Amino acid sequence: MSGEFTKIAAVSSPLADSAFLRACRRQSVRHTPVWFMRQAGRSLPEYRSVRAGMPMLRACTDPGLITEITLQPLRRYQVDAAILFSDIVVPLVAIGLDIDIKPGVGPVVADPVRGRADLDRLRDLEPGDVPYVREAVTSLTATLGATPLIGFAGAPFTLASYLVEGGPSKNHERTKALMYGDPDLWHALLGRLAAITISFLRIQVAAGAAAVQMFDSWVGAVGPDDYRTHVLPHSRRVLEALADTGVPRIHFGVGTGELLRLMGEAGAEVVGVDWRVGLDEAARRVGPGRALQGNLDPAILLAPWEVIEARARDVLARARSAEGHVFNLGHGVLPNTDPAVLARLAELVHEQTAI
Amino acid sequence: MSGEFTKIAAVSSPLADSAFLRACRRQSVRHTPVWFMRQAGRSLPEYRSVRAGMPMLRACTDPGLITEITLQPLRRYQVDAAILFSDIVVPLVAIGLDIDIKPGVGPVVADPVRGRADLDRLRDLEPGDVPYVREAVTSLTATLGATPLIGFAGAPFTLASYLVEGGPSKNHERTKALMYGDPDLWHALLGRLAAITISFLRIQVAAGAAAVQMFDSWVGAVGPDDYRTHVLPHSRRVLEALADTGVPRIHFGVGTGELLRLMGEAGAEVVGVDWRVGLDEAARRVGPGRALQGNLDPAILLAPWEVIEARARDVLARARSAEGHVFNLGHGVLPNTDPAVLARLAELVHEQTAI
Repeated sequence: MSGEFTKIAAVSSPLADSAFLRACRRQSVRHTPVWFMRQAGRSLPEYRSVRAGMPMLRACTDPGLITEITLQPLRRYQVDAAILFSDIVVPLVAIGLDIDIKPGVGPVVADPVRGRADLDRLRDLEPGDVPYVREAVTSLTATLGATPLIGFAGAPFTLASYLVEGGPSKNHERTKALMYGDPDLWHALLGRLAAITISFLRIQVAAGAAAVQMFDSWVGAVGPDDYRTHVLPHSRRVLEALADTGVPRIHFGVGTGELLRLMGEAGAEVVGVDWRVGLDEAARRVGPGRALQGNLDPAILLAPWEVIEARARDVLARARSAEGHVFNLGHGVLPNTDPAVLARLAELVHEQTAI
Repeated sequence: MSGEFTKIAAVSSPLADSAFLRACRRQSVRHTPVWFMRQAGRSLPEYRSVRAGMPMLRACTDPGLITEITLQPLRRYQVDAAILFSDIVVPLVAIGLDIDIKPGVGPVVADPVRGRADLDRLRDLEPGDVPYVREAVTSLTATLGATPLIGFAGAPFTLASYLVEGGPSKNHERTKALMYGDPDLWHALLGRLAAITISFLRIQVAAGAAAVQMFDSWVGAVGPDDYRTHVLPHSRRVLEALADTGVPRIHFGVGTGELLRLMGEAGAEVVGVDWRVGLDEAARRVGPGRALQGNLDPAILLAPWEVIEARARDVLARARSAEGHVFNLGHGVLPNTDPAVLARLAELVHEQTAI
């Protein structure tokens, strides 16, 4: 279905020339672009207001709410990109899995994956399964104009962890037991999840998303050998299946210091880095030909401004080692973050890097 | 109080010649010693039996129960060391802090540390505050004979995290906010906690513990620069204050790939490594003059035996790069681990490394 994609990279346009897309492609930028993971979320009073009494999955499947929540941070912050408001389980719910997102807990899966028979429930995702996503992305890109919209999906490993554990997990022990104990089933499971993720991201790009980010939030739980054998082939398949769309692909995980080289090999244009590894060291690990995204510790935003400013400058200084840099936090905005601090931070990044 | 310590390293005795103490000191061993973090705990039916209806803190303050629970794994496994059954909050409770250990949650602190006035509650720990620990260690070392007993304490950072957050934390955000926002108070807090940890460990060594392990379980949440500035000085102070006792000091944390070199600099004879970094790479990072402990992923124990065996052999093969090796898991035994598997694993390590 490559014919349907407009190669925004190939043509000069205000969108293609946006600092965000140029940085992803390691082109020169007029300032370092900035956005914040979870910029649309619980730290915003206007988000809490629209979400009052509204279950997460209802918000994620209502095109009007997706659009409104995605746009909220852009009214406050000088961010260089929007990211689709969604949740990584949305495509799984869309194909019929019984998953609820419980406040204070996270996704809870009614019937966790326990054996081969459970794979049958993981059918392919069709565009008609997520009309609200198509509608929201179409509406958002029309509104956003030259501001890129980043498409959103979970990576196969992290999706598998939720499905196998039945919910959030500290030790990912059932997931690993399956991975180590029944590698055939593991690969079959991740193959299904990769197919779903590919469809979910292609639907978003077809509707106008100008970039995609694949969140492998929990993959830092495995070491590099297991990553190479049990995770990388599936993440690579997703990223490669997006290649023909021409949009930059961002590949992010937490606690991935040992995995950065392999994550770079998986095929994304941009590797997201958490705060545990400086971007100078991350650039060495990821290697040439990739941009980096990150990596201020979100907890630093709870400190006094002087500390935040010094740390943000340090991130920018270390990022000079990278071929391209998208400023971000090392993980999502914490709920008790002051929005005024994020606004000031976005300004600081722009001021410090303007040419 | 150095005069009271018998330098077990200096004299030849069955205890000093134990494989565990020799490996900690990077001396030749007749087999690689093995023990398992949380070997005394929820994976054992006899542990669940003695703990039935018994709150954790009551078990940790009853010398008979401490002794019984510490010995339980030695009746099942060919482990080369016992570790004192305790909890890292025990010394904090002993000086009067209102902390409960809630099942399924962890330590819950009634009045979290919020300001300088809270430091006054963190008075020094005296031997008379923990008579049950002295009594249990004395009784245990008499029973254990040539099998070393490892003393147990939390490190200042991890203790601070519980005290500042008020309980277990995913993001350690209040802890970091204090660390970044009020470094003077932070250092004063960690100084108090270091003093308590020193006393708690010296009490255990004075009563007969042949080694100590300092658990900095959550320190992987900070990057190397913050570790160097805000954590290392206090961990080093604890380890150095144990130097005159002559017992090997083990320094362990989770997710510490970026910190291993600095943890090696903190002064312990042995650096504990989780499963994310192979021991060959860990040996390079920690540098010469240190033994390593680890590092089989505890989740692997839920896989079939063939997988466990292959992974354990891989750990042993990589450990040849280390100057000394104590086989262990990369973190504590998971509750649903089959004790028979741990028994077989201890045997395997001994068989594979016997000379």
